[in-house]
Amino acid sequence: MNPTNLSDTIVALSTPAGTGAIGVIRLSGAEAIAICDRVFWGKKLANADSHTLHFGTIKDGERILDEVVVGLFKGPTSYTKEDVVEVSCHGSQYIIQELIQLFIREGARLAMPGEFTMRAFLNGRMDLSQAEAVADLIASSSESAHTIAMQQMRGGVSDEIKKLRQELLDFASLIELELDFGEEDVEFADRTKLKELVAKIQGLLKVLLDSFALGNAIKQGINTVIAGRPNAGKSTLLNILLNEERAIVSDIAGTTRDTIEETLNIKGVNFRLIDTAGLREAQDQIEAVGVEKALAKIKQSAVLIYVFDIIKTQPEEVAADLANLKQDNLHILAVANKMDLNPYTKAEHYTSEFLSEDQFIPVSAINNMNVEYLKERLYEVAIGQGLTEESAIVSSARHYEALRKAQASLADVLKGLTDNIPSDFVAMDIRRALAFLGEITGEISTDDLLGNIFGRFCIGK
Amino acid sequence: MNPTNLSDTIVALSTPAGTGAIGVIRLSGAEAIAICDRVFWGKKLANADSHTLHFGTIKDGERILDEVVVGLFKGPTSYTKEDVVEVSCHGSQYIIQELIQLFIREGARLAMPGEFTMRAFLNGRMDLSQAEAVADLIASSSESAHTIAMQQMRGGVSDEIKKLRQELLDFASLIELELDFGEEDVEFADRTKLKELVAKIQGLLKVLLDSFALGNAIKQGINTVIAGRPNAGKSTLLNILLNEERAIVSDIAGTTRDTIEETLNIKGVNFRLIDTAGLREAQDQIEAVGVEKALAKIKQSAVLIYVFDIIKTQPEEVAADLANLKQDNLHILAVANKMDLNPYTKAEHYTSEFLSEDQFIPVSAINNMNVEYLKERLYEVAIGQGLTEESAIVSSARHYEALRKAQASLADVLKGLTDNIPSDFVAMDIRRALAFLGEITGEISTDDLLGNIFGRFCIGK
Repeated sequence: MNPTNLSDTIVALSTPAGTGAIGVIRLSGAEAIAICDRVFWGKKLANADSHTLHFGTIKDGERILDEVVVGLFKGPTSYTKEDVVEVSCHGSQYIIQELIQLFIREGARLAMPGEFTMRAFLNGRMDLSQAEAVADLIASSSESAHTIAMQQMRGGVSDEIKKLRQELLDFASLIELELDFGEEDVEFADRTKLKELVAKIQGLLKVLLDSFALGNAIKQGINTVIAGRPNAGKSTLLNILLNEERAIVSDIAGTTRDTIEETLNIKGVNFRLIDTAGLREAQDQIEAVGVEKALAKIKQSAVLIYVFDIIKTQPEEVAADLANLKQDNLHILAVANKMDLNPYTKAEHYTSEFLSEDQFIPVSAINNMNVEYLKERLYEVAIGQGLTEESAIVSSARHYEALRKAQASLADVLKGLTDNIPSDFVAMDIRRALAFLGEITGEISTDDLLGNIFGRFCIGK
Repeated sequence: MNPTNLSDTIVALSTPAGTGAIGVIRLSGAEAIAICDRVFWGKKLANADSHTLHFGTIKDGERILDEVVVGLFKGPTSYTKEDVVEVSCHGSQYIIQELIQLFIREGARLAMPGEFTMRAFLNGRMDLSQAEAVADLIASSSESAHTIAMQQMRGGVSDEIKKLRQELLDFASLIELELDFGEEDVEFADRTKLKELVAKIQGLLKVLLDSFALGNAIKQGINTVIAGRPNAGKSTLLNILLNEERAIVSDIAGTTRDTIEETLNIKGVNFRLIDTAGLREAQDQIEAVGVEKALAKIKQSAVLIYVFDIIKTQPEEVAADLANLKQDNLHILAVANKMDLNPYTKAEHYTSEFLSEDQFIPVSAINNMNVEYLKERLYEVAIGQGLTEESAIVSSARHYEALRKAQASLADVLKGLTDNIPSDFVAMDIRRALAFLGEITGEISTDDLLGNIFGRFCIGK
């Protein structure tokens, strides 16, 4: 079965499995309307206008399977640009199964995951990056993840990349034109200007590449380790952080409670709070048994919230703990808890090689004092200025990889230009960069790549 | 919140919760179109034709929440007979939650379970029995349960009952007309003919009442206990019975595996096979520890498959076991297993007070010999002649109860006529019967009754 074969008609349940009020079965392809017309008793769909709804019954021979509403989208004004029929039936597993089997008997084929969206891509309704964003959109579980996916689906990232790619393409054409003249040693492309252009594109790519750390963190949720000595008040802090948010989080099904402890939503960004139980159970020295576990968790995290008891823990102990816990690219916030018992402690007592004043957060968890400020600081260190509606943010590991390779090829281009290597080698490097950029939008794609991307979709999309 | 208040506009997710390709949010009520128009950027729905589909975006202020397809049904040509808007959005929990909250901010109210269907009933689109069938249809997990629900939804049961009720009504009118004449002692209603009519209606009610055992069994699945002495071959039999069906069963989500052991589908009817583990673990006498457990399970069952080893078990032992296991209204099939080892055993050796020849099923489970015949016999004893497409079958306990009360009232009527009691008492009994029948179709209903019925629906239907 070739996934890029568009000649057959596909069918799948597009709504989640399970019993509900209604289920929607979607057909797409040249035969979608004819197949439905053979079993649908109501208006003849072949004679109906696009974008219309029709009530009727679906019969398997003499047997009434269901009373349904059929939505008709005639290509190319449909999701896939093919003829699409959406059958809204009663949400019974049994009925849905019977209807799909009936459509298959009538000539449709069960769609593979993501095949409707793949057809939308193959038929030019959207580029590959936009198609991928559809899956991200469906999986989005926070406002910021939703914003990034929506932006990408509406062409945010693609537009940026297409623009860069076009500039490169113009540039490549000029160089290749020179090659056409073979021996004549002409130079259509001003090498100085070309270097400037490459540098400019590199700068833009860098922005996109840099956005990935944020984009990926937002998409996945930001891993945030909470560590500290026993009885520093971690549990109280955790509870108060989660208290008002817990209800919201639990509304969203599929939050992977089993692998992460809790999710805290701050301004639409999900922080995955990872409690370091090992550390918590350590005897009284942070260097004890739990440290290794904590370090392993910190390695996968963006932020460390180090909690200490302002009464019991001396500045040099905090410094020692942080010396043990610090890692590259790890944002540290040091929460001085129980400030209600010692309100006069100043940050400056605790600053050290490992802690600056703005990393020091005085808190009284038990009194909910300054906890909002902690949240703000958490958001700031993780997200910085935050998302603007316009900023193109790369959140796909695949895009990041392609951008990185394009960037490396551009570095080769620049080096080649500087070293004055023959133009045909420079042209090859440019073509390589173009290919990598083209992979993102799907201007260049292979069946393998498509299978890989759309295989991750749910069935029916 | 009064469930029968139709003045506000309701909203709910109509597709199952969970992440999927699409989700459908449904609005119904006078404001449905206006509410959607305020947040939908595409064609203005107020100006669009009914039964049309529109692509556009839904915005919360400046923020794009999703790209959606909106289906428009203008009342009264909609499910609820009110204006209905169905919004197909990306199947993200987050998006669905945001959209529903947006619609609520714009003036819609979250629908209660079954409220769309309740409005369809209150607005006269369907009667109560049909509305109830919608829930049965969604819950149906076998062909026969589906057939019964579909028949009821399309008016099968209602039509029958309405016909009976009309006959009774005519009858009541005549008697009440007599009462209007007070002292004059006229007799418009021929008492003999009336008795005949009541008897006829009683006959029809009896058919409906009798159908309940079957209808309920089909709807719930037919409880079938498998019992027998240790090593009679029960497990082998169970496996071979389930073998080819297991795949089909597991396709249907929500099958309650935890409370019943296995489901066997025979000709579209679900048999819930209940293994009597207690009995299985009993020492060597069926009277041992397991019997009590087995008896408790049998009490809830329609069929007992008693399995015995034809080599080891003597006729008198079978008779003793069946004497212990028999109960009223229990169909018994005695499976003589391991017939391959003794093919000459005849049923007549085993017939007894508790076992007739046609209850004796010779089988070799290990060789899959005669297992199909066992299935046929199982279907026959439980279902009899089976369902015909036309037969009205009562499957609702509520309907059964109402029919039973109507039947009792009719018996009172008949008795009154025979005893020559005053006509006004007879008329009261008739009115009571009419009221009970009216409860089924909803010609007579209360808020409590409606709340009770529709509270069992899923939200969004």
